[in-house]
Amino acid sequence: MIGLADVEAATRRIDGRVRRTPVAPVGGADLGLAGPAWLKLEHLQHTGSFKARGAFNRVLAAAETGGLGAGVVTASGGNAGLAVAYAAGTLGVPAEVYVPLTAPAHKVTKLKALGAEVRQVGDEYAEANEAALARAAQTGALFCHAYDQPEICAGQGTVALEMLDQIDGLDTVILAVGGGGLLAGVAAALAGRARVVGVEPETIPTLHAALRAGHPVDVDVSGVAADSLGARRVGEIAYRVAVDTEVRSVLVADGDIVEARRLMWERFRLVVEHAAAAAVAAAVTGAYRPEPGERVGILLCGANTDPTDLAH
Amino acid sequence: MIGLADVEAATRRIDGRVRRTPVAPVGGADLGLAGPAWLKLEHLQHTGSFKARGAFNRVLAAAETGGLGAGVVTASGGNAGLAVAYAAGTLGVPAEVYVPLTAPAHKVTKLKALGAEVRQVGDEYAEANEAALARAAQTGALFCHAYDQPEICAGQGTVALEMLDQIDGLDTVILAVGGGGLLAGVAAALAGRARVVGVEPETIPTLHAALRAGHPVDVDVSGVAADSLGARRVGEIAYRVAVDTEVRSVLVADGDIVEARRLMWERFRLVVEHAAAAAVAAAVTGAYRPEPGERVGILLCGANTDPTDLAH
Repeated sequence: MIGLADVEAATRRIDGRVRRTPVAPVGGADLGLAGPAWLKLEHLQHTGSFKARGAFNRVLAAAETGGLGAGVVTASGGNAGLAVAYAAGTLGVPAEVYVPLTAPAHKVTKLKALGAEVRQVGDEYAEANEAALARAAQTGALFCHAYDQPEICAGQGTVALEMLDQIDGLDTVILAVGGGGLLAGVAAALAGRARVVGVEPETIPTLHAALRAGHPVDVDVSGVAADSLGARRVGEIAYRVAVDTEVRSVLVADGDIVEARRLMWERFRLVVEHAAAAAVAAAVTGAYRPEPGERVGILLCGANTDPTDLAH
Repeated sequence: MIGLADVEAATRRIDGRVRRTPVAPVGGADLGLAGPAWLKLEHLQHTGSFKARGAFNRVLAAAETGGLGAGVVTASGGNAGLAVAYAAGTLGVPAEVYVPLTAPAHKVTKLKALGAEVRQVGDEYAEANEAALARAAQTGALFCHAYDQPEICAGQGTVALEMLDQIDGLDTVILAVGGGGLLAGVAAALAGRARVVGVEPETIPTLHAALRAGHPVDVDVSGVAADSLGARRVGEIAYRVAVDTEVRSVLVADGDIVEARRLMWERFRLVVEHAAAAAVAAAVTGAYRPEPGERVGILLCGANTDPTDLAH
């Protein structure tokens, strides 16, 4: 478990390393809402997603105890991998990033450009992940999980403290849930102060299924947002925090996610990835319906996406 | 000429009609600058550019004197046309937008979606413009110029008052110049309080040529930013304000504009049009080099662009 104190410690630790991303006030009508809303533009963060926060927090926390002699290792060709590579590169720490042989060339190129050593192993992420864990055990390198480690979750939660500061009278934060690292940190940071709504695609309901089962369970993974929300199972930390803080869980259809992503471009000139659009879709479709006067912040979590389909 | 009082009046007039767009603080290093910098995300404005400000100000000012009985008319298939169509549509005023027969179908579609009547006349904008002026003379409709009218310029200047409010100790605003409506309003708003740097592509140096000649002169128009900065001659209002307030004029190469637009996407996940990228290019290339400690705001003026070339 993590709590507000962990998130506050993370805020101090990563200060100056991450961007304080801006908030855009929007007429709720543009999103089909009765009241006002705010978009937290966290997709403008270093490496294009909130993941830089957790990565810096995990690496810097290890540095405080002298645990970085053998560098860091992770397994992800997505947002988590980019963030670990960036944080390590910025701090001058060697990073190894494991991805499967099937990882797209442009992802490998980006990781290398950030200074990481890229190791391509196996046909699936499960195999790359096993190789990364084995490597960490062998060398003593710091293993960075994509979501289920306390420092990772606490780091992600720092975005919520910014939102509290930036949005007067914030009542509710709507965000997308994959493995739940962001959810865990945000819900821990806001416990007792604002409501948290966790949005998942119907095609990847990790949190929804866990809350129904009473514990994290595996789900099938598919759909438009699988690239960034494609965890099979919500993290233990996220599950515990979600239960303790009474996170609301809602689902949205893939078609509504696609529509919401297009709406973000057409009405706001914001290019976001499908995960971020899932949070928007919850508002637009009424999957989450705020009370009259409720002040809602929608967290746009990432923009590592191909904008080609947004042309004209 | 216009002055601060006109911009302040515009701010009151258009309050609630336009978005107060956010500012993103960025490490100057990400732009090759020694000191801090702030990006004014004005491309998130209604219709994707600052032009909504001037359009609302011109239409609402006319409404105050009862001059809207015959609707509004303009000639532009670009940002100015979209803004006039949007402002008129929002206010329930009929709008006619003249464009040449050669205007791309997607631009015509957008104008119609905003509720405008689109009239396609002639092969070039000069012909469409003449037809629009003739129509306004015939019907008594309010003609909205793309840049060279006091209410248009004053409306655009409202963005500068927001920047003063949002950026502590703002020293300098860097912005792109086409016909000069934005420049005129911003320079009038900031006169004596902050420096204004007007950036133009080498391929469309309307302000630069005017300052050199001692009066507005026609220039050839070409290059990547011609779509939104393609005026042949800087407006009289802009020229007068630029001289009186000692605006700095700098030029950037098309290749640097293209690079800067790509940098905005790769480092900040911001999709902007080439005009906005021109302002960024002035900072990145050192065409404008701030003093140590100078606090610089870069105005991202629009995002009506095809993002296809930003893929991976």
